[in-house]
Amino acid sequence: MFYLDNAATTPVLSAVLEKSLPYLNEHFGNPSSLHHLGVGAARAVKTAREALANMFHLSKENVIFCSSGTEANHLALWGIAHSSRLKGNHIIASSIEHPSVLRTLEALQTRDYHTSLIRVLPTGVIDIAHLETLISEETRLVSCMAVNNEIGTKQPLEEIGTMLKKKYPHIIFHVDAVQAFTKIPLLMKSGKIDLLSISGHKIGAPKGIAALIFADNISFSPVILGGGQEHGMRSGTENVFGIVALAEAAFLKEQKRESVFESLIHYKQQWLEFLSSECAQIEVFHSPAVLPYFLSVAFPPIPAEVFLHHLEAEGIYVSSGSACSSKKTQISHVSQAIGMSPYIAKSMIRLSFSAKNSLEDQHDMFRRFSKAVGQLKELI
Amino acid sequence: MFYLDNAATTPVLSAVLEKSLPYLNEHFGNPSSLHHLGVGAARAVKTAREALANMFHLSKENVIFCSSGTEANHLALWGIAHSSRLKGNHIIASSIEHPSVLRTLEALQTRDYHTSLIRVLPTGVIDIAHLETLISEETRLVSCMAVNNEIGTKQPLEEIGTMLKKKYPHIIFHVDAVQAFTKIPLLMKSGKIDLLSISGHKIGAPKGIAALIFADNISFSPVILGGGQEHGMRSGTENVFGIVALAEAAFLKEQKRESVFESLIHYKQQWLEFLSSECAQIEVFHSPAVLPYFLSVAFPPIPAEVFLHHLEAEGIYVSSGSACSSKKTQISHVSQAIGMSPYIAKSMIRLSFSAKNSLEDQHDMFRRFSKAVGQLKELI
Repeated sequence: MFYLDNAATTPVLSAVLEKSLPYLNEHFGNPSSLHHLGVGAARAVKTAREALANMFHLSKENVIFCSSGTEANHLALWGIAHSSRLKGNHIIASSIEHPSVLRTLEALQTRDYHTSLIRVLPTGVIDIAHLETLISEETRLVSCMAVNNEIGTKQPLEEIGTMLKKKYPHIIFHVDAVQAFTKIPLLMKSGKIDLLSISGHKIGAPKGIAALIFADNISFSPVILGGGQEHGMRSGTENVFGIVALAEAAFLKEQKRESVFESLIHYKQQWLEFLSSECAQIEVFHSPAVLPYFLSVAFPPIPAEVFLHHLEAEGIYVSSGSACSSKKTQISHVSQAIGMSPYIAKSMIRLSFSAKNSLEDQHDMFRRFSKAVGQLKELI
Repeated sequence: MFYLDNAATTPVLSAVLEKSLPYLNEHFGNPSSLHHLGVGAARAVKTAREALANMFHLSKENVIFCSSGTEANHLALWGIAHSSRLKGNHIIASSIEHPSVLRTLEALQTRDYHTSLIRVLPTGVIDIAHLETLISEETRLVSCMAVNNEIGTKQPLEEIGTMLKKKYPHIIFHVDAVQAFTKIPLLMKSGKIDLLSISGHKIGAPKGIAALIFADNISFSPVILGGGQEHGMRSGTENVFGIVALAEAAFLKEQKRESVFESLIHYKQQWLEFLSSECAQIEVFHSPAVLPYFLSVAFPPIPAEVFLHHLEAEGIYVSSGSACSSKKTQISHVSQAIGMSPYIAKSMIRLSFSAKNSLEDQHDMFRRFSKAVGQLKELI
């Protein structure tokens, strides 16, 4: 099996499982319990929270664990919108955000907020000049993802954050870093980032765990209320297993961030050379902003689903656009926003790599890829 | 170790772990992915959803998975309050609900709703006559837990549901069944229950997974928006591992529900005989409504935390009131609501049993319990 769908989800790393599994049975206490089973669980949560906070040069009070990147994004947007200590009734996001941001924006629009979408250039990078025309004294929040989940383009966070805070220091800057976390450095302070969402299952931790990280002096409203866990900002018994796993996966991935990045530059280069030499009909989405972790290719007019299933028959697993919207058949909002021709967009598949993808496998994989493409040629 | 804190949390059952663990690595697909790793994960979620729905004689569309009982309660209350298809701006809950219900009620009160709390009798059972005086054409929702988490009293759900629907058929009836699920039968149809919350970690599944079950024709608004998972009612990548585990734990526990209930009647009886014969100073909270799974005892004026830690030194793990609020030192809202004297309430600890607690262990446990009580006597 050649798994090239790491942007959709990843298997749990065995080292992560080893560290977190005891919290399901042996150390199963409820962190709120006063006896030592509870205290042990609470300590494990505290250690994980500190480790994650340290990665962002923040303290443990700046980390809120929740259940998914979607929930983290929702909590950031909804929480900032409902904070009584902030001003402005205007919220901005880029037009290539994840549906969890876009749908929350739409919901806020029906509740006394007006919203704007930032235009995105054909390179897949947001148009900062357009953002500059959108912001005003009335703007409360700007949300922009660090790396796009469909096309893998990195956004100029430092440039955006610096511009925002220079023009309107009161504007809150939220970054959905679900795809970016442990792939690129995420410098909250120099990027002037106020809130940052990350998710476990994209980095070798389980599904069902995520976090919202926030800078000092950021005030927002909780969504889920109850027993007051997570500093009162997100109630519900803590998913101790997931929390321990998230911190461990983050630590392991971050340790190897630079070396994996370097090796994938070479790995992707091999892909590009293979495609240009042996699969001339394949269209590649080229942009200097695309991370080496991502490769978007199309074989028009073959629909993406057909391409995907022919590759699957050869043991190669990829995605048609974003997995989150892949069961819908329309052209994705991302391809529309960057002005990709619908003819190409309908055929576009996403290859997303991880440290597990190696140059040694490429010879066999390319042979299988060529075979699938050969079969598809007969369909045209 | 004698673990008598099963109402706080439970270890994951080994059969549950065996069934669910492969979804963390071997079958790690994202249910939204189109290739067979995704399809396999989606199928596992579907099977779990059907199994859970079947337990309530409903179809799989009536089950929404989420991350905690707290989230399920919040989704029920917030979602019903924000449904445009329902009438009324009055919401009612019992005064002994979990904080996730009470805090959400308070939040709704600041947003165009008025709210009422149902009085509770000294037996720990809600005062239905009082509820009858509270409801009106304006009432949108009544929320009442099936079994109280602090004192273990069972509420007369069928009587409440029948009365509500007879007087005002439009009123929505929500039941927090987090403590009741797999302990007592939960008949949604005959109890006229519209929405029901359950949680995994109380029944031998992991923390971080729960569900909201709802009857046909119930319409409520989602809270977390995004990729449209869970029939669009709760977005975010599905916690496949947790979902499979929840369904399996529910199946296993429900299978043994009656036999465990019967055996705990005898088990608790032994406790009561032991306490009355050998620990005369111990006060027991007596009510016919208390399930055999629960036993609340106090050794006034010894504070609950001191009692708890002396028992812990003997290897007996209990809780001081509800684990969710056990880090707060005030008298719990439940003991206040049932009119328990503060003198007793400050000393009250909760023993909560499971199928793992056996008569064979009692001899040794009672000896240790007596030893702890003997030490406490010297403190008075």
